Amino acid sequence: MATKKELFATPGVCAAPDAETRDYVFQQTMVRIRDPAPSLDFYTRALGMTLLAKLPFPEMAFTLYFVGYARPDEVPEDPKERAKWMFSRPACLELTHNHGTESDPDFKGYCNGNTDPGRGFGHIGLAVPDVEAACARFEKLGVEFVKRPQDGKMKGLAFVKDPDGYWIEILNPEASSNFGSG
Amino acid sequence: MATKKELFATPGVCAAPDAETRDYVFQQTMVRIRDPAPSLDFYTRALGMTLLAKLPFPEMAFTLYFVGYARPDEVPEDPKERAKWMFSRPACLELTHNHGTESDPDFKGYCNGNTDPGRGFGHIGLAVPDVEAACARFEKLGVEFVKRPQDGKMKGLAFVKDPDGYWIEILNPEASSNFGSG
Repeated sequence: MATKKELFATPGVCAAPDAETRDYVFQQTMVRIRDPAPSLDFYTRALGMTLLAKLPFPEMAFTLYFVGYARPDEVPEDPKERAKWMFSRPACLELTHNHGTESDPDFKGYCNGNTDPGRGFGHIGLAVPDVEAACARFEKLGVEFVKRPQDGKMKGLAFVKDPDGYWIEILNPEASSNFGSG
Repeated sequence: MATKKELFATPGVCAAPDAETRDYVFQQTMVRIRDPAPSLDFYTRALGMTLLAKLPFPEMAFTLYFVGYARPDEVPEDPKERAKWMFSRPACLELTHNHGTESDPDFKGYCNGNTDPGRGFGHIGLAVPDVEAACARFEKLGVEFVKRPQDGKMKGLAFVKDPDGYWIEILNPEASSNFGSG
């Protein structure tokens, strides 16, 4: 059994985290879902999670459902306040519903990552106090970007890649609370 | 923008979580990695996470590295205490290293879930106070199992499936703190 000293001596480990990362939060894990009704039933009824936020993007034909362990009475009434609160919390599961899959007889279903090929798992995400500052730091460190904050439609939001190519979203809770139309 | 009442009226949502799920924790997200050194460097140096536990399974030729946002001084000295502490925390990232991929020239890399086919993402996991009780409840609810607690080598640990087939590990922090040999 490893001592703590041995643990932190594992090759690759930076035992003293950069102070600039102090307020980073492992906020989300995103997976795609075929149909929100059975998925929400499963996560809220079977697993006992709470629906923390629903962010529809009708012009892009998808809706995001965030679930996690919070008491329903903790969920803020105000939609924007609610989104900001949710985007600040660790351990949220983001369920992405691309509209239409639930009624498409040709839809083959998503890959669960363990068997069939294809899309399924999307990314993990960190909430950070300042996306620009975090990304400037990632640039300096030579981290690979999928999307810089200024790229694409979603300004102020970035995606970087880990060494295996997994996507990591870099978001700010305040800015992200403006996303989604409903 | 949806009111909270409208949010909880979303089809499928169970607005009052079952009391039996009160102490469930969204504890982990697992992805496979090719080589632990660059991955640990990335997650601890670039993202500022801490290596919370390292659980080697030499007889099965894999090692688990758990990283997450905790201060290094929070990590318990005692390996078993450390594992139990980690398995009780929300928002840990479990990096699974199947030994040999880091030096195998034929290894094609893992699927990040967004592009190439193949394995990559593994599962999310919940820490629960009583795995048997949680699984008895899941059975009653008709939840599909990948592995029941009594199946396979890892007794007391279960995997269920969500509606899209994603795997969800059901673990107990105390019991899981006995896993891994080092």
